Amino acid sequence: MRYPDPIQKLMLLLRKFPGVGGKTAERFAFALLEWTHEERLALAQQLHSLDEELSLCNQCGCLQGVAGCSFCSASWRDKRQMCVIAFPKDAFAIEGTGEFRGLYHVLGGLLSPLQRRAPEDLAVDALKQRIAQWQVEELILGLDATFEGDATALFLQQELSSTPVRISRLAFGLPMGSSFDYVDGGTLARAFSARGTVS
Amino acid sequence: MRYPDPIQKLMLLLRKFPGVGGKTAERFAFALLEWTHEERLALAQQLHSLDEELSLCNQCGCLQGVAGCSFCSASWRDKRQMCVIAFPKDAFAIEGTGEFRGLYHVLGGLLSPLQRRAPEDLAVDALKQRIAQWQVEELILGLDATFEGDATALFLQQELSSTPVRISRLAFGLPMGSSFDYVDGGTLARAFSARGTVS
Repeated sequence: MRYPDPIQKLMLLLRKFPGVGGKTAERFAFALLEWTHEERLALAQQLHSLDEELSLCNQCGCLQGVAGCSFCSASWRDKRQMCVIAFPKDAFAIEGTGEFRGLYHVLGGLLSPLQRRAPEDLAVDALKQRIAQWQVEELILGLDATFEGDATALFLQQELSSTPVRISRLAFGLPMGSSFDYVDGGTLARAFSARGTVS
Repeated sequence: MRYPDPIQKLMLLLRKFPGVGGKTAERFAFALLEWTHEERLALAQQLHSLDEELSLCNQCGCLQGVAGCSFCSASWRDKRQMCVIAFPKDAFAIEGTGEFRGLYHVLGGLLSPLQRRAPEDLAVDALKQRIAQWQVEELILGLDATFEGDATALFLQQELSSTPVRISRLAFGLPMGSSFDYVDGGTLARAFSARGTVS
């Protein structure tokens, strides 16, 4: 017994969400049936607005609404600090910490042979230009603690070795609230070698 | 730091899906950003089509596409058996078993004081009419094994006591593949009292 066609097609699309399989797509599809007509209309509208109202800042590559880039246009931000991130959404995670008041620069991904992402696919030339333009003093690499993140960090370090900018990378160590029982050996090793004095 | 407005609004709507909280809505919203323009358009279109192409059969209350009700129009279905279900989607679950070849009747819910669903909110009059129309011999109550399902079953039994129809209800017992360690006491008690001979 197949579901009616509109539900089948809807389920196929809903399965494209991360972590959503057949069963969940089914639940979502029937949940959508129980929404009001207006609620469904609002969701359809919002999907259109992603195309119409959102774009990437042509300076830093972050997401911007119709009002322009909220990072680049903020006069209070410290232009001499720049944080390099892989994807636009990473900026929101870092903003959530309240630890950073500089500008961002989105690479558009990490180096990855498996995903065929090579150096020329990353926004490195634009990065060099912006470093010169704003006379950036510190470049913070806010990249994943993965093989791809390591490779990208190494690559950037080499590419920028001729510029006077100081390059730092987010610290590696024990995640807050973690217990030894559940921390992997690699993390423990990095935390050990990067140990600091007790303040 | 707030996300741009279109993402905020989208996240609010996505949180309405069952089991989706703030974090998952965030992941879904950013996943939608990575879909192609065409895929987002297709999803918006499918949401519209739920209103345009789907309706409830005015006989049995099941979901139907533009081609009409696939249950009521199937000449091979046994009209003397009728399965009473709470919601349209329940029919698909029962069809999946391949155990039933009769007609369905959707009540539109279960009796529930908490949700303020009273007898007059259920499609009981239509049920009586259809039982007479098709000279239904067996009425199978395909209702949840919950307090609300029990109350609704009891209510239907009383309502239909004057009709000659035989009323049965889905069996209670151990779910297939279950082990004693994980079965609750209520289920075990029902399985015990409804025990059958070993075939």
